[in-house]
Amino acid sequence: MNREQLIQNIRTKKSVLCVGLDTDLDKIPAHLLQEENPALAFNKAIIDATKEFTVAYKINTAFYEAQGVKGWETIEQTLAYIPKDIFTIADAKRGDIGNTSEQYAKTFFHTYPFDSVTVAPYMGEDSVKPFLQFEGKWAIVLGLTSNKGSEDFQLRDLKDEKVYERVIKRVMEWGTKDNLMFVVGATQGEQLKHVREIAPDHFFLIPGVGAQGGDVKTVCTNAMNDDAGILINVSRGVIYAGKGEGFTDEVYNAAKNYQEEMAVFL
Amino acid sequence: MNREQLIQNIRTKKSVLCVGLDTDLDKIPAHLLQEENPALAFNKAIIDATKEFTVAYKINTAFYEAQGVKGWETIEQTLAYIPKDIFTIADAKRGDIGNTSEQYAKTFFHTYPFDSVTVAPYMGEDSVKPFLQFEGKWAIVLGLTSNKGSEDFQLRDLKDEKVYERVIKRVMEWGTKDNLMFVVGATQGEQLKHVREIAPDHFFLIPGVGAQGGDVKTVCTNAMNDDAGILINVSRGVIYAGKGEGFTDEVYNAAKNYQEEMAVFL
Repeated sequence: MNREQLIQNIRTKKSVLCVGLDTDLDKIPAHLLQEENPALAFNKAIIDATKEFTVAYKINTAFYEAQGVKGWETIEQTLAYIPKDIFTIADAKRGDIGNTSEQYAKTFFHTYPFDSVTVAPYMGEDSVKPFLQFEGKWAIVLGLTSNKGSEDFQLRDLKDEKVYERVIKRVMEWGTKDNLMFVVGATQGEQLKHVREIAPDHFFLIPGVGAQGGDVKTVCTNAMNDDAGILINVSRGVIYAGKGEGFTDEVYNAAKNYQEEMAVFL
Repeated sequence: MNREQLIQNIRTKKSVLCVGLDTDLDKIPAHLLQEENPALAFNKAIIDATKEFTVAYKINTAFYEAQGVKGWETIEQTLAYIPKDIFTIADAKRGDIGNTSEQYAKTFFHTYPFDSVTVAPYMGEDSVKPFLQFEGKWAIVLGLTSNKGSEDFQLRDLKDEKVYERVIKRVMEWGTKDNLMFVVGATQGEQLKHVREIAPDHFFLIPGVGAQGGDVKTVCTNAMNDDAGILINVSRGVIYAGKGEGFTDEVYNAAKNYQEEMAVFL
């Protein structure tokens, strides 16, 4: 999916909601465990209940990889079930030397045809560039993450900037606003505005709203640009909003509430 | 596998050779492509030809992930085929917020019972610690990698140390020499000695010998400690040493040559 299509979807739905499919068999409603593939049944129900309000789905591959081959089949089938006009993200945080990153890019752009994949920057240029060679596909590189561990390295001071600033500035040299986004945590309130100054035109994938403590208003105020320019991911706050057999009603309402909060800023 | 067993294997075989199974269907001998699972047939032949000289096998998961479900079946079957007294490494470079890293640890320690997994440090403490909670299992955290991209971030100057030095020192606070190793590139000649000073007791996984330009002598001279303390990975230089139907003879000789070079230092 290209940038124009993504922006058009945001305008049409008045939403920047990305729903994170961090599907954990220990947390899904008990009645689904009788299904042949409980994770897939859950994902389909979540997609049906949220697609009206959602412009992106993010599949956190870790939760599927832990299930082995069956998990990868669930990824494939979930991806096929997502409506074609909704942006898809493989949240896989890959990155390795060049010839290996090429294999990861092939995995998440061809074998599993996602629109985008999250990429870890620690290994530098040759680890990131292979993800930027595919027409209509995106690398979403970790900039400043939402977790406490972001203090350990990302927020350390280099001589005249922080590590994460260096990362974002340098990575921007390798891609464009048409194939490169950054992960910036919703919990990084004041820094969010600063990151928007560094990268005025790039889309940001913003996790950390809901269970991790970030809120929609702060994010929209600090990080939106004229093209919206953000995708706000909510995982637990939407997909586990309901508990029993009628769980999708509460999931629908949770997604709707987020969309309505976002619409104010769009 | 625990540290004592690993050291004992190194002493018995007089080798620190880790063979990297970066199995690429475009590079394996053509006659194997007729097999039902060419990658598995290749891996079994490589293991048979090298196990006498090898103390670890490293499976680069990217090359298998790109094959989808069949690739994960190959990982499982290759892992089962590796002799139980040889250390196994999932070279997967994972790392995410805590609850997600837990899923990755489960993937590579339980679903696929490797002895160790490589971990990317950018997201800090809560992204690394979940890999350090498993008895007899190891996290191998990226310190200073072998590729050119290491210059982009790892080798940048913080106020009084380089980024990679901070990473290694900080990560050392989270684990011990019994559950934590570091990736340090063979191509980082002079820095290797310095990393050994920072972390005198930890094992290093050292890629970059062979195709990437590092050499055994420099590595052993700069990075070994009294317990050997290193695993030198060679991928392309061993597994693609032979071309035709008799390729395993050249693979055997390549592994043997590396072992003999290493024995001088053990």
